[in-house]
Amino acid sequence: MNLAEIVKEIVAEIEPHRGEGKVADYIPALACVDPMKFGIAVATPDGECHSAGDADEPFSVQSISKVFTLALALQKVGDDLWQRVGREPSGSAFNSIVQLEHERGIPRNPLINAGAIVVTDHLIDNGDADAAIELLLRVLRDHAEDQSIDIDYDVAVSESDTGARNRSLAWFMASFGNLENDVEVALSAYFRHCALALSCAQLARAALFLAFNGEDPVTGERILTPQRCRRINAIMMSCGHYDNSGDFAFRIGLPGKSGVGGGILAIVPGQGAAATWSPGLNEAGTSRVGALALEALVARTGWSVFG
Amino acid sequence: MNLAEIVKEIVAEIEPHRGEGKVADYIPALACVDPMKFGIAVATPDGECHSAGDADEPFSVQSISKVFTLALALQKVGDDLWQRVGREPSGSAFNSIVQLEHERGIPRNPLINAGAIVVTDHLIDNGDADAAIELLLRVLRDHAEDQSIDIDYDVAVSESDTGARNRSLAWFMASFGNLENDVEVALSAYFRHCALALSCAQLARAALFLAFNGEDPVTGERILTPQRCRRINAIMMSCGHYDNSGDFAFRIGLPGKSGVGGGILAIVPGQGAAATWSPGLNEAGTSRVGALALEALVARTGWSVFG
Amino acid sequence: MNLAEIVKEIVAEIEPHRGEGKVADYIPALACVDPMKFGIAVATPDGECHSAGDADEPFSVQSISKVFTLALALQKVGDDLWQRVGREPSGSAFNSIVQLEHERGIPRNPLINAGAIVVTDHLIDNGDADAAIELLLRVLRDHAEDQSIDIDYDVAVSESDTGARNRSLAWFMASFGNLENDVEVALSAYFRHCALALSCAQLARAALFLAFNGEDPVTGERILTPQRCRRINAIMMSCGHYDNSGDFAFRIGLPGKSGVGGGILAIVPGQGAAATWSPGLNEAGTSRVGALALEALVARTGWSVFG
Amino acid sequence: MNLAEIVKEIVAEIEPHRGEGKVADYIPALACVDPMKFGIAVATPDGECHSAGDADEPFSVQSISKVFTLALALQKVGDDLWQRVGREPSGSAFNSIVQLEHERGIPRNPLINAGAIVVTDHLIDNGDADAAIELLLRVLRDHAEDQSIDIDYDVAVSESDTGARNRSLAWFMASFGNLENDVEVALSAYFRHCALALSCAQLARAALFLAFNGEDPVTGERILTPQRCRRINAIMMSCGHYDNSGDFAFRIGLPGKSGVGGGILAIVPGQGAAATWSPGLNEAGTSRVGALALEALVARTGWSVFG
Repeated sequence: MNLAEIVKEIVAEIEPHRGEGKVADYIPALACVDPMKFGIAVATPDGECHSAGDADEPFSVQSISKVFTLALALQKVGDDLWQRVGREPSGSAFNSIVQLEHERGIPRNPLINAGAIVVTDHLIDNGDADAAIELLLRVLRDHAEDQSIDIDYDVAVSESDTGARNRSLAWFMASFGNLENDVEVALSAYFRHCALALSCAQLARAALFLAFNGEDPVTGERILTPQRCRRINAIMMSCGHYDNSGDFAFRIGLPGKSGVGGGILAIVPGQGAAATWSPGLNEAGTSRVGALALEALVARTGWSVFG
Repeated sequence: MNLAEIVKEIVAEIEPHRGEGKVADYIPALACVDPMKFGIAVATPDGECHSAGDADEPFSVQSISKVFTLALALQKVGDDLWQRVGREPSGSAFNSIVQLEHERGIPRNPLINAGAIVVTDHLIDNGDADAAIELLLRVLRDHAEDQSIDIDYDVAVSESDTGARNRSLAWFMASFGNLENDVEVALSAYFRHCALALSCAQLARAALFLAFNGEDPVTGERILTPQRCRRINAIMMSCGHYDNSGDFAFRIGLPGKSGVGGGILAIVPGQGAAATWSPGLNEAGTSRVGALALEALVARTGWSVFG
Repeated sequence: MNLAEIVKEIVAEIEPHRGEGKVADYIPALACVDPMKFGIAVATPDGECHSAGDADEPFSVQSISKVFTLALALQKVGDDLWQRVGREPSGSAFNSIVQLEHERGIPRNPLINAGAIVVTDHLIDNGDADAAIELLLRVLRDHAEDQSIDIDYDVAVSESDTGARNRSLAWFMASFGNLENDVEVALSAYFRHCALALSCAQLARAALFLAFNGEDPVTGERILTPQRCRRINAIMMSCGHYDNSGDFAFRIGLPGKSGVGGGILAIVPGQGAAATWSPGLNEAGTSRVGALALEALVARTGWSVFG
Repeated sequence: MNLAEIVKEIVAEIEPHRGEGKVADYIPALACVDPMKFGIAVATPDGECHSAGDADEPFSVQSISKVFTLALALQKVGDDLWQRVGREPSGSAFNSIVQLEHERGIPRNPLINAGAIVVTDHLIDNGDADAAIELLLRVLRDHAEDQSIDIDYDVAVSESDTGARNRSLAWFMASFGNLENDVEVALSAYFRHCALALSCAQLARAALFLAFNGEDPVTGERILTPQRCRRINAIMMSCGHYDNSGDFAFRIGLPGKSGVGGGILAIVPGQGAAATWSPGLNEAGTSRVGALALEALVARTGWSVFG
């Protein structure tokens, strides 16, 4: 299989669709991104990264960061995490508060906003959000073997400035005692990790361990137990794309996570990790062209986990 | 891998849990099933079926039948099916009507009751529910290479007698024009296919094609296109266990479908198909001991699709 | 106060609004009603009926009939009724099924469709829907002192033919054991009483007892206890207009009930009963011009119960 | 009618029920109130106040204050208020957030928490919550002819300390642009007016204008237009007791407002204003014994607006 060739073909294949979808516009920093951008990268266990298009340009990973905070939280607190967040698809939008009321402040899963705030809350000791973010950055830089990875602080500030809905979710959970830290402390870390800027290449490389049972196949470092790794993949499959998670599983058949910055991360167990970037979103907040590109990747490689 | 040995070990392993859970009691025919029953069968592409416990005793497959009607409907009408039923997890109970109201009579997916009634409706031509059921029986007998497979008509009659909730769902969809046939015609077929009686061995054999891209590996018969086969597996992963679908993916990591008769079907792409039977259910209607047995199977075989 | 003059002034006042709103079109018999029709009638305790416009032309009273079946059911079964139906506003549309699921088949109040079906079910003994309807007709004719009142059977048949949503509601309640009679028996009576045809004058006269503590002020006949009469008025105030009941109380300040045939009944405790008819409806199913006319009536008479 | 006698009889009548219900315990200042307290007062247009029991002991009026802020806001901004808050019963608990999501941040009515926060927000100019509270206090003292009325600042601080759920509601509305002031500014005024401490006698006197078309019958001062006064009464009737508003209308038949401090205010158009206090609440947050006392009052006086 010639992945270098395949990613080039995919760039050509999506060409007629470039610019489709609606760029997220709730903060200026996202709204002004060029909608014609497109990048794809596939990291493989031999340490190679096959990429094409704008695969080396950092973008705001937004919700994709929730996968990495989930991994960190499971490393840190283990299965106690599941006392405070579920693992079922929500059947609702990413920022819905309805189920929180019916289910007494326990979010459905760690990949919707409410759940990710709870996960982030677990990463913060003694109210020190900065330390939690530093740890996350250190870990991501190590995984990606790239010390240049950083947060886009303009985006982080904008997230906070426009974060009323997330504040509502956080206060709602706080009212049920489901946050350990002050609401603004937890959100301060949450807004920052959503503002992480990574390129497709960095993202695919940083997530490679998820395709190899929790062990980085290049460095040999064990990051998670095989069981926890499988479970993160399962949660991505069930819940990674809000209320179009089922459609993503149906069309692409890989565990994945999308972000409103236009990125999608997809894990191919035993094979590698793929990342795409195209800012235009569908109604559920998943990159339209990115999903097309991943469909094309699976069609060419046969990488669906479903046969 | 010695599957014959593994299934025996699993019978021993679940022994302390036998009888756990609550047997479905909404119809007498289910309520009087012995809660201590347990069977497991794994069908493999070489035509073998490795089984243990009560694996040859037919039980009421109930909702597991929805997988086979979905396959038939996709063969018959293709992607037009998705005009009338979605493919997203519902986040709700199997018989919930709430989303139908918000989403104007279009059920979330083909594996909740409302969605399965729509799928069944597609199988019926000219109001002839009997012909649809005959076709389903013929197909199942062929897939399972066992002409003795049949419907338990006592169960079918009981289903209909106690079918008020399903009638409500069907009339609700009818009010939005989402049924082609008369409500009682569609339900007549629905109640009968839910009353199919298969053993674990028959069930695993009948579903084997789903593990091999839609082609029966024993007979070589192509039943579905590879793409449709993958998609059915994806829907089982996302939606196969109602509001504990996410937990099933998390714990077991295989596409599957549970029924309130206590059966679970699990597909292992490229390897085989497994079926378990234990009547006691968890709160969401999935067999408790059956899920434990499948966890044990995955632990011993490494068969999770997630790594 | 010269009511004869006032009703004439109101006809003039609403003239510029005639034809506003959207005529119910779910059955042909309603859809073909002339949208320019307008009638108003006010029955007073001296036996007079002050009317203007099309006040003597019978129209389909639809949900207004629920007030009379409620009165009959309270006479028949007393407070046991409240075991099977609530008395809270639903905050939802007239035909919503969502709350039924959350509240296990007990409708919120007797004036939404589900609640009215339960009320009707109480009126039927031994499965004899015909007898229940005969009783209702006899009672209405007596109250209105007009033996010509009847059901429009064309409308009743159409209601049944298009009654899928009501069938869904009824089966849903049946699934929780909240119907005594067969679903089709209960609905047969329900569809017929909704198809009652009364003129504004007949309607106002028939409901006059509700303004006088349950006693007909003309004949002196006691129909209900004062307490039950007050309670029916309270329920009309809280729940008489589906999800615009609050707005009706806010604007008009009288207990009332609207029907999708364009009629509105309003009770003025101690003064009389008013009925209007104008087929165009607002989004919640209340007659637009009828509500304007009642606002004008209250402005001229000071009849709001709120001061 | 001897109201002095009637209120004494009512104290005797409720005696066997004293202490029933559950005292609000979400803040210590409420939790430690003696559950055996009971007071009743009826203010009449002649300037008299007929009272019995603990009618002169100030208690935390909590949500009853929402009636006075609503009156003030209507005086200040008029019907523009209805752009940002509805007037329909919610059918939900006082602090529910579900409808806010479905209805894009517009609360159902001014008497649920979310709606009252919006109303309070209207009272605040230039972010000066203190000025808004000073105005409210001045107005209440004038209405009640009692300059000693004040806020219980311990309660206000506790409300704020435990105000996570209200913060969530406020941020949710802010995310839809439905608050003019900063969330904490609006809440600062909201928590303080909920902490107002009035006795039954003060409360009945302060609300007397609502029974007389907006004019204080003792001083002759016009406070509201008759129309706005009627409308406030209508909203109290439809929405004054959260999800048991319908039951209150059914049993008592008067516009009213309950607070979790155990108070209930009831308006008798044309007759007077009544207030009761008994700390034990029913499941919906309305004083159990207070509601019984008002039922007894209406039974003795025939004061129901429904006949």
